[in-house]
Amino acid sequence: MSDFERWRELGQQLRVDSIRSSATTKSGHPTSSMSAADLIAVLLAKHLRYDFDRPDNPTSDHLIFSKGHASPLLYAVYRAAGAISDEELLSFRLFGSKLEGHPTPILPWVDVATGALGQGLPIAVGIALAGKRLDRLPFRTWVLCGDSEMAEGSMWEAFEHAAHEGLDNLTAIIDVNRLGQRGETMHGWNLDSYVDRARAFGWHAIAIDGHDVEAIDGAYTEAIATTGRPTVIVAKTVKGKGVAAVENKGGSHGKALDEPDAAVEELGGIRNLTVAITSPLAGEPHVFPHGTLQLPRYEVGTEVATRKAYGDALAALGSARGDVVALDGEVSNSTFAEIFAEQHPERYFEMYIAEQQLVAAAVGMQVRGWVPFASTFAAFFTRAYDFARMAAVSRASIKLCGSHAGVSIGEDGPSQMGLEDLAAFRAVQGSTVLYPCDANQTAKLVAAMADREGVVYLRTTRAATAVLYDADEEFSIGGSRVVRESDEDELTIVAAGITLHEALAAADRLQEEGTGARVLDLYSVKPLDSEALSAAAEATGGRILVVEDHWPEGGLGEAVLASLAEAGVQARVTHLAPRDMPTSGKPAELLAAAGIDADHIAEAARELGARLAWVRDYL
Amino acid sequence: MSDFERWRELGQQLRVDSIRSSATTKSGHPTSSMSAADLIAVLLAKHLRYDFDRPDNPTSDHLIFSKGHASPLLYAVYRAAGAISDEELLSFRLFGSKLEGHPTPILPWVDVATGALGQGLPIAVGIALAGKRLDRLPFRTWVLCGDSEMAEGSMWEAFEHAAHEGLDNLTAIIDVNRLGQRGETMHGWNLDSYVDRARAFGWHAIAIDGHDVEAIDGAYTEAIATTGRPTVIVAKTVKGKGVAAVENKGGSHGKALDEPDAAVEELGGIRNLTVAITSPLAGEPHVFPHGTLQLPRYEVGTEVATRKAYGDALAALGSARGDVVALDGEVSNSTFAEIFAEQHPERYFEMYIAEQQLVAAAVGMQVRGWVPFASTFAAFFTRAYDFARMAAVSRASIKLCGSHAGVSIGEDGPSQMGLEDLAAFRAVQGSTVLYPCDANQTAKLVAAMADREGVVYLRTTRAATAVLYDADEEFSIGGSRVVRESDEDELTIVAAGITLHEALAAADRLQEEGTGARVLDLYSVKPLDSEALSAAAEATGGRILVVEDHWPEGGLGEAVLASLAEAGVQARVTHLAPRDMPTSGKPAELLAAAGIDADHIAEAARELGARLAWVRDYL
Repeated sequence: MSDFERWRELGQQLRVDSIRSSATTKSGHPTSSMSAADLIAVLLAKHLRYDFDRPDNPTSDHLIFSKGHASPLLYAVYRAAGAISDEELLSFRLFGSKLEGHPTPILPWVDVATGALGQGLPIAVGIALAGKRLDRLPFRTWVLCGDSEMAEGSMWEAFEHAAHEGLDNLTAIIDVNRLGQRGETMHGWNLDSYVDRARAFGWHAIAIDGHDVEAIDGAYTEAIATTGRPTVIVAKTVKGKGVAAVENKGGSHGKALDEPDAAVEELGGIRNLTVAITSPLAGEPHVFPHGTLQLPRYEVGTEVATRKAYGDALAALGSARGDVVALDGEVSNSTFAEIFAEQHPERYFEMYIAEQQLVAAAVGMQVRGWVPFASTFAAFFTRAYDFARMAAVSRASIKLCGSHAGVSIGEDGPSQMGLEDLAAFRAVQGSTVLYPCDANQTAKLVAAMADREGVVYLRTTRAATAVLYDADEEFSIGGSRVVRESDEDELTIVAAGITLHEALAAADRLQEEGTGARVLDLYSVKPLDSEALSAAAEATGGRILVVEDHWPEGGLGEAVLASLAEAGVQARVTHLAPRDMPTSGKPAELLAAAGIDADHIAEAARELGARLAWVRDYL
Repeated sequence: MSDFERWRELGQQLRVDSIRSSATTKSGHPTSSMSAADLIAVLLAKHLRYDFDRPDNPTSDHLIFSKGHASPLLYAVYRAAGAISDEELLSFRLFGSKLEGHPTPILPWVDVATGALGQGLPIAVGIALAGKRLDRLPFRTWVLCGDSEMAEGSMWEAFEHAAHEGLDNLTAIIDVNRLGQRGETMHGWNLDSYVDRARAFGWHAIAIDGHDVEAIDGAYTEAIATTGRPTVIVAKTVKGKGVAAVENKGGSHGKALDEPDAAVEELGGIRNLTVAITSPLAGEPHVFPHGTLQLPRYEVGTEVATRKAYGDALAALGSARGDVVALDGEVSNSTFAEIFAEQHPERYFEMYIAEQQLVAAAVGMQVRGWVPFASTFAAFFTRAYDFARMAAVSRASIKLCGSHAGVSIGEDGPSQMGLEDLAAFRAVQGSTVLYPCDANQTAKLVAAMADREGVVYLRTTRAATAVLYDADEEFSIGGSRVVRESDEDELTIVAAGITLHEALAAADRLQEEGTGARVLDLYSVKPLDSEALSAAAEATGGRILVVEDHWPEGGLGEAVLASLAEAGVQARVTHLAPRDMPTSGKPAELLAAAGIDADHIAEAARELGARLAWVRDYL
C-alpha cells in the first residue's frame, strides 16, 4: 500500500470510529469530525512527533483541537495511536468515562480543555511562545480550528500575536467545512477570505483541498519548512464527508448518525490500523537560574501601593525561581509587572491590549510547566472571563493579578473600576481569591501563589496605603488576621484591601465613643478562614459588619455569609458596599459616596449596636 | 479665513481645551486627545450631522469615542459646539461633574460609555445595523478608535460583521499615534498593517496624514461616497502633537501636562471658536407593526423546555411589539431564537460565533430605542462579560438569554455548562436575573423583560421539564411562588429552574416520611422576593435548604443569604450546589453526582431537621 492509500484508509478509520463512538449515547459531533479526518490522518501518520507512552515528554509536539467538539476524531486518533482500546473509545460521553463530550485533561494527552470555541489557538500561542522563548525546544504546536470559530475575536488576537512573535513553530489548520451549527458560516467555502485575512496578519497561508492527502502532506511539509512566521492551512472540506445521508447537509451538526451501521458500511467497514507515531526530536528544556527568595520588605507606617508590592515581589520571585514568568496586557507601568520585565526580560511577555490572549497564553505556558503570572486592571479581566472559566476545566494553574480595583481608583471613573472581579473569580471552580491590604502582606501572598494550583486571583489597589504589618509576619492562603481586638469588643468589622484601612479608622472613632470594634482582615476571600470568622463572630455577640469596595453581590460580604451559614454560626451581618454607579472624583470622595469610608463604617456600627440593643430590650 | 485655516484653528482649540480640562485635577489623557484633534476638528466642522439641541433626534449622526480615554477631546468638541460652557469644561473629572474621566451617557450626547478599549466599534456596528435595517435612516456612525485597541479581538469581530452586513453608514477612524500606555504598539506607524487587515476583512481603507486637514476632509468625503462597505480611515498622527514637551514622547500617556499654561501658549493660546454643526438629514424612523400580545400557553403536566418557551414567547412578543428585535450567536436552533427569526426575519440578526459583538450590537441597537434580546449558551456569555459590565455603565437596557445552564445539560460536558452565569450577572450594577422553572412562567417573564431597564438576564434549561403553572398565572420580576406548603412544614426548600423540579420530588418523599417541606420558587434571583423568603423562613422555623445548579459562589444560595441578612431574619441555611468539576453523563447522573437531585435534597433536609432536633435537645 502506498503512503497515500494508507493515509486515505486511516482517514476512513477515523471517520468510522467517530461515528461508532457517537453512537454510544447517540450524541456528539461526528460530522464535524469527518470533515477533518483526512487532515488529521496525514498529520498523525507522518508529521506529528509525539510520545504517547510519556505524555509529559517535553520534546513532544502539541496537538490542540480548538474545535473541541470534534472530540470523536481526537479519540479516534488515540485509538489509532494505540493509546486507548476500542472498548474505551466506545465509552464516549458515558458517565465515568474519560472520553468526555469535549476534550479535557483528565486524558493525559489532552493539554487543555476546549469546547468554548476560539480558545485553542490563543492557548496554542502560549505553548508555542513557551517552546520558542522558554523551553527553547524544537517541538511544534498543531491546532485544528473550525471555520465557524474564526468569527471569535480571540482567534484574531492569536493571529496577531503569533505573527508578531514570529511563531514558526505553530501551525493552524482551518477545517473549512462551510457549515456551522445552524447554517452556513459567513464565508462558506470562500477559502480566499481566510487566506487574505491570515496573510494580512502576517501569516504564511496555504489553501488546499482538505481531502487530498497528497496536498495535505505538501502543506504540512511547507509549514514545517516555513521560518519566521506561523503557517495556516486553509482546507476546503466537506462536513460529514463519506456518508451520503449527512454529507454537506445542514441540520446534521452535533448529532449522532441515525444509521451508524449503514454509515460504517458505506465507509468500507471497521478498520484496525495502528499508526507508528514519529518520535519527538531530542532535547532538554532550557532552565533559568534559581536562587534564594528575598522578598521586598516595607517599613510599617510608610505608604506603598499593593500593586507596587506585587511588582516588587514578582520580580523577587523571578530571581528565586527560574520557572516563574510574567505577562501583562500593555499596562505594566500600572500593574507594576514592569519591575519583573526589567529584571527578567527573557521571561516577560508583552501581550498588548488583548486580555483573552493574555490569559490564554498563561494557560498555554503552564501546559509546559511554567508558572505564569498575568496582570492587567481588575476590570479588564472581565474581558477574559470565559478563558478563566475554561482554565478551571483545563485544570490549569495560572496566577492573575488585577490592579485598580474598586471605586477607590478615583478620577478615571467606572469603566476602569474592577467592581465585579471578586464575584467572577470566586465563581471559578477550584479558584483562590486574595485581596491584601498592605505591601508586606502582598509580597507574602505573591510568593504563596506560585505553588498554588488552579486559577489564583490577586486583587491590588491603585492608591498607596499604609504598611500595617511587619515584613516578618507570615500570611498564608486561607488565613486571616485580627488587626485589632480587645475583650470588650461589641462587634467585628470584616474588611480586606482598601476598606481595611477605613475599618481601622472607624474602629478608632468608635473606640473614642467607648465602643470596641474588632477588625478582621479577611485577605483570603477564597478559601476563607471560616474558623477565625466564626470565632470573631462569637466573641462579639454575632455582630458582624462587612465592608468592601465591590458590588454587594458575590464578593466578600456574601463569602462571609456563606461561611457563617456553613459553620452554623448565628450572626447579625450588616454589609456595606457600593450600590450605585460611581462617577469620577477623588478616592476619598468616592469611598464616601459609596458608603464605605470610615464615617459610614462607624455609623453602620452604631446602628448595628443600636438595633441589637433595641432587640435586646424588646425581648 | 479659508476652511483649511479654520479647521486648523479648531484643531488647536481642541488641543488647548484638552490640556486645560486635564489640568483641573491634573489627570486625564490630553496627549491621546491632541493626536486626534485635527481628525475631529474637520469632522465637526464639516461632515458630522448632529442636533445638539435635541440629542435624541433620530436622524442625527452618532459619534463614538471608542478610545474613551480621549474624553478631553470629546468634551472640547462639546464646548466648540456650544453645548457646554467653559466652566463646565473645566469641571472635568471633579466629583459631581458630568464630565467623567471616560465618557458616560450622563451626558445627553454620549450614546454609550467607553473606556474599556475595543468596545466602541462593536457597539457602533449595532447602531449602524439599526440605522440600516431597523430605523432605515441615512444617519452615519463615526467611531474614533485608538491604534492600541486594534489588538482587542472584539475590534476584529466588528470589522468582520460590519463588512458582512455591508455597513456603508459606518466610518472608523484609527488614530495611529504609535504610542500605547507603556510603549509602542505592535505596528507603530506602519499604516499598511492596519490598511491590509481592514481590506482583507472587506473594508474600504484610506491611509492619510492625520494632521493634514485637506487630506482628512478628502477621506471623509470618500467615506461618505463609498457604498456597499464600511470605510476605515487610517490616520498617522503624533501623540501630544503641538507641544514639544510631550510630542511623540513615551511616558506621557494618561498624564496631565506638567506646564499647561506654557503648553497653551505654545499652541497659540485659548480660542473661543464656536462651530455651526451641520443639521441632520430629514427622515422618520421606520416603524414595524404592533399587535396584541398573545403569549404561548402550555398545558400543565406536559414537558416543555424553558428554552423553547423563550423562543415561543419572544416570537409572540415580536408580533405584539414592533420595537422588539432578536440577536443570536449562531446557536439559534439551541436557544430557540430561531422561532423569532422565522416569524420576524427583518428584525432578526445573526451574529455568528462572536459573543462580544453579539452583546455590543444589542447595546448599539438600544441606543436607537430598539428592545434587543440577545441569546447564546449561558456559558458563552462569559465571553462578553466586559460588555455586560460596561452596558451597565452605559445605562443600557438589553435583554440576554443564556440557555443550557448547569450540569443538567448532560453529555456535552463542563465546557458547555453555564455554572457561573448567575454570579456574573448578579454582579452587574442594576441588573435583573431571572431563572424560570417552567414554560408558562418563562413566557410571562420574557414579556416582563421587554420593559425592564438595565441589563436583564434570563437563564433557561436545556431539558424538557414539566409544566407546573397554569398559563393564566402571573409572574412578575421580583416575585416568587410558594409551590407547595402546609401548616406543618418543618423546612423551606428554595429552588429555581431545574432544581425546582428536584425539590418537588424531594418534598414528595419527605411527605411520605411525615416531614412537611415547603417549596419556594425564587425564579427572580435579582431582585429577590425578600418578603416571601423571610415569611417562609419564619413559617418553617428558620430552616432553609437552597439547592441550585450553579457553583456555590454568587448564585441563588448567596442571594438567599444576603436577603435574609438584610431582613435581619435568623435562619439556618443549608446550601446544595455543584462543587467538583462535572463530567459528561446523563442529566440525572450529573444532577446526582453534583448532589443536587431529589435524593440529595431529601437527605439534606433530613440532616437539617436532625441537626436542629439535636440542637433543641441539647439546649
